[in-house]
Formats: sequence, structure tokens, C-alpha cells
Amino acid sequence: MNSTLPKNFSNQPATLESLQALIRDDLKQVDRVIFEHIDNSNVPLIPQLARHIVAAGGKRLRPALTLACAKLCGYSGDRHIKLAAAVEFIHTATLLHDDVVDDSHLRRGSATANDVWGNKASVLVGDFLLSRAFQLMVADGSLRVLEILSDASAIISQGEVLQLSIANDIEVDESQYFQVITSKTATLFAAACEIGPTIMKNAEQATKLSQFGLALGIAFQLVDDALDYSSTQATLGKTIGDDFREGKITLPVLIAYREGTSEEKNFWKRTMADVEQTSDDLDIAISLINKYNGVKKAIGVAQAYCNQAKESLAIFPDSGVKNALIETLDFCIARAY
Amino acid sequence: MNSTLPKNFSNQPATLESLQALIRDDLKQVDRVIFEHIDNSNVPLIPQLARHIVAAGGKRLRPALTLACAKLCGYSGDRHIKLAAAVEFIHTATLLHDDVVDDSHLRRGSATANDVWGNKASVLVGDFLLSRAFQLMVADGSLRVLEILSDASAIISQGEVLQLSIANDIEVDESQYFQVITSKTATLFAAACEIGPTIMKNAEQATKLSQFGLALGIAFQLVDDALDYSSTQATLGKTIGDDFREGKITLPVLIAYREGTSEEKNFWKRTMADVEQTSDDLDIAISLINKYNGVKKAIGVAQAYCNQAKESLAIFPDSGVKNALIETLDFCIARAY
Repeated sequence: MNSTLPKNFSNQPATLESLQALIRDDLKQVDRVIFEHIDNSNVPLIPQLARHIVAAGGKRLRPALTLACAKLCGYSGDRHIKLAAAVEFIHTATLLHDDVVDDSHLRRGSATANDVWGNKASVLVGDFLLSRAFQLMVADGSLRVLEILSDASAIISQGEVLQLSIANDIEVDESQYFQVITSKTATLFAAACEIGPTIMKNAEQATKLSQFGLALGIAFQLVDDALDYSSTQATLGKTIGDDFREGKITLPVLIAYREGTSEEKNFWKRTMADVEQTSDDLDIAISLINKYNGVKKAIGVAQAYCNQAKESLAIFPDSGVKNALIETLDFCIARAY
Repeated sequence: MNSTLPKNFSNQPATLESLQALIRDDLKQVDRVIFEHIDNSNVPLIPQLARHIVAAGGKRLRPALTLACAKLCGYSGDRHIKLAAAVEFIHTATLLHDDVVDDSHLRRGSATANDVWGNKASVLVGDFLLSRAFQLMVADGSLRVLEILSDASAIISQGEVLQLSIANDIEVDESQYFQVITSKTATLFAAACEIGPTIMKNAEQATKLSQFGLALGIAFQLVDDALDYSSTQATLGKTIGDDFREGKITLPVLIAYREGTSEEKNFWKRTMADVEQTSDDLDIAISLINKYNGVKKAIGVAQAYCNQAKESLAIFPDSGVKNALIETLDFCIARAY
């Protein structure tokens, strides 16, 4: 277990440093575009709230992937900057609406926007950020990028609705869980990675980098969900058990339920399906998940997706950027420990 | 006062009939596109909820304007069908989020989507519909239409946030109220009207029809807001006083406050700014608004905007479509009586 905080990416192990170093200047420009397009609203509440969520958004992983994948394809213009900002706006809009939907009050140790400004403002500023994303794409002018990101946006919301539909359904098929995380998380990772080769009009590279992003995104969400039952999470300053308290069905729970005794199944039915929980139940849930290695198995699946992602990079010759993208896969798994 | 219900547009006087007759077949096609793009989601909750709000959306005024304005410009293709559906999707997404933000439980006499399926599902399905709108525009392929509607979408959400920011602010300047209704309502009317001439690449007609839509939209919202304090509203099967109960600042209230005695000003401060209301207060509010002709004056302003809208049509030769658009202006005012 590694509880050391990294220098540059708060709450994350230091393995994103290579990626960060390679795109540092580009990422600064992305941030400039983001804040410029937030601050130019004439309604003061918008920059206040949007700056809060953009700051809480953290490590800019998705725009970083856009920038790095563009670099990997040899792109040397500046179109990827605004498009990376558009990707981050879509992500940020999702976070705002997610926190409303989940009734969350903490994100990365800070109060959520809905906690500070209320659900109403969060819903509307989320809409604003999504619109700004499309304005940035339109200004760029690539219909194919617009297609990729409007498709991603539709798939994300369908994934979120599916997640809501199967919340508390402990009998749900594992494939539904994978559909949720693929839609709500991996699709935007895939889109972010596909932008660079798309503006370079390289279809083969676009396919491979989309596959890379999709597999990385699935792995990323698997680890995220597993961490909700892991003591590692606590050492990173995050709360654990948020998913449990909401009755959100994730892989560690599905594993423990599937393997569990009938008494244990009843525990999961009471706590997840009926959401009748006492203060001891999170500890019991964690011990049952540990009994069946639920967290470890989920991280094992994530590792397999990372291996698959790495294979998608095979068509690219070795380079600093390629190594940094491989390190990003390692980072994705490493943060679980 | 006219309490007769029309044959085709429920809850509306019959003056939209000419418009409806002219675009009846096109509007059926728009509905087909709408339902096709709702039903092709693989998450069952989405068509359930989306069909509910699309049905509750009512008279399809915005897509009707897109169709009619395209016809006015002599457009004879079929691109306007999908783009009119995109306009309705943007509108419907806004309605879903509005009902969450306003905590509304009734829309056109039926339970709102958030009342039936909860706020969470309404927020997410709203996001889905907005994404579908952009997918339809991307499939059409006009970057200028994408620009018009992504700009409109950003302005709408800014208008909604501004409305939230000035809610309960009885001292607010009238210009802020006009900024809210222009942004949240009139901008989409303007965009809807601009689509036809835009795909015909006629810049002069695009400017004029955008002006027509903007003025019509402002008039439409002025009347809508005035009706909330009018007994006509009650005869149309709608509840009155919704805005009052929320402390939403509209023109009739601003007029009554501005002209009111200091005792009356205190009434408005208590009921609108502090939202401390008793069961008699709506009647008192209505009588104070009537004392200063607040509803009539607001409708008078709406009439002036309709006259302005009519002038924007001057460049077009007389035709059945032009007459139907002028009748739409009359309808906008007539529904107040």
C-alpha cells in the first residue's frame, strides 16, 4: 500500500508524471481555454460554480489523453487544445449532474457544487458547460469530432440512466454493470483519445486509440468502484462506502453476492436492495467482499483491460509519449494499492 | 375572455390552425423522427420518461416555426424535418430540467416527469435529449446550424441561471427580467426560425427571421408570465400562482411593486423576497397587480413585440405561410384573453 501523496497530481501516485511532463505546456493552454470560456459568461454565478467544479475535477486525465494521443500521432497544430477543453467540459458537466443525482456532498475532500450552491444551480451550470463544449467543437469545425463527442455524450447519459435503473438491483447481471461503466466512463476516454488521429484524418490510428481509451476507461472505473471498499481509499483522503450507502451495484458487491452463502445474500438484499443499513453494515460489507477477494478480483479484471489497452498501442513505434501512455495504464492500477 | 378549447391544439385558442394546416404533414414527420430517436435507446426508462415529456410538451410551436419559416423561404427538401426535431429536443430537455429546478409537479394538467420518475431520472434524460439534438444536427452536417443551436443552448442555460440568481429579488431591474426571458425563451424561438433560411444560405432572410423569432419569443414569455396572475389561465385548466409561490420575479409583479405604496411594497418583500406566504396572499397579489394593471401592461408590451415581429416579415411577399406566421403572433396575444 502506498499512501505517499504525489507532487503534482493530488491524491494520485506519481506515475502520471511522465505524461504530465510531456504535455505540461499544452495542458496549461487547455486550462486557459477552460477558464476563458467559463469567465466570459455575464451571469456571475456561472464562473463561481463552474470554477469550483473545474478545480475539483482534479487531474485533467481526459484532456491529457487527448493531448498525448494527438502528440503520439505526430500532430503539431493547436486544434487539440480547444477540443481537449471541450472533453473536459463534457466531463465536468457530467460530474455536476452526477453529484446532484447521487446527492453527494463531498468530491475530492471539498464540498460539492450542489452542497454549496444547491441542486438547481448545479443542474443548470452543467447544461451550460455541455453547451460550451459543443460551442468549442463547432468553432473547431470538424464534423467527425462533433459526431464522436455528441455520440459519446448520448451514450454517457444512457449509461447514467441505466445505472439509475439497476441501482439496488442485487440480482443484476454482471454484463449490465459492464455496460454501465463502459457507457458512463469509458466512452469519453475513448472519444478523448480518438480526437488527435481524427483531426489528422488517420482512420487506423483513430480506431486503435479509441480502443485504447475504451479499455483504459473500463479499467479506470473498475478500480474506482473497487476503491470504494478499500482501505487505500481512506489513506487518499476520500470517504469509503459511498456506493454502498447508495446501494450502487459494483463488481466487488456482485462477486461477494454471487459467491455468498444464503445468509450473506440476505445481508446484501437488506443493505443494497432495501437500503436498510445500520452503522456496522459497511464494515460487514467490506469483510464479506474481502472474504471472496472482491476488490482484488475487480482489480484483476482492470489489469486485463489495461493489458488489452497496451496491445492497442502496438501499431505505434516506441516513443516518449507511447511510454507515458503505458505508464498511465500502470498508474490506473497502481492507485489501487 | 375565451374559454372555448380549440380542436387541434389543446388549451390554445384556435388561431394556430392556419399554421398547423400548412405544415401538418411535415409536423407528423417531425414527430416520427422524435419518437424514433427516443425509442432507439436500449435503456427502457429513457423512452418511458422521454415520451411522457414529449407528449406533455404540447403544441410543437418551436418545430412548427422551423417548418413554416423554411417554407416561407421556399425550401423544398427534407433537412428541416430532423432539424425541427433537434429544436424540439433542446426545448424538451429544458422543460425536464426546468421542472426539476422549479420543483414542479404539474405540466399541462399532467404529473411532471420528475413527479413520476424522480429528479434524478429527469436530469439524466434531459441530458440524453440534449445529446440527441446535437446528434441530429451533426447528421445534417451544417456547421452554421450547429453554431446557431449550440449558441442558443448556452444562452438558454445562462438565462436559466440568471433567473435563479434573481429569484426573490424584488428590487431587480426590469432589464434583468427582459434578459432572462430573452435568453431562456426567445433565443430558441429565434434559432428555430433561422434554420430554414440558413440551410437555404440566405443571410438576409436568416437575419429577419431570427429577429421575428426573437420578438415573438419575448412576447410569448411575457404573456406566459402574465397568465400566471390571470383568471384566464384557470379557465384553460392550468394552475395559477406557480410563479408567485416560488417568488419568481415577473413583469406584472415588478409593475405592482414599482407603483405600489410602501405598505404594498412590504407585502411584496414578505411574499416574494422572504417567501413567507399565507393562503390569502395569492388573492392579495392578484388584486394588487390588477390595481396597477400589471397583467394588461405586460400584455401591452407583448403586443409591441408582436408588432415588431410582424415588421421583420416585411421583406417576404404575401403568401399563405406569411399569413399563418402573422396569425401566430395574434395567437400569442389572443391566448391572454
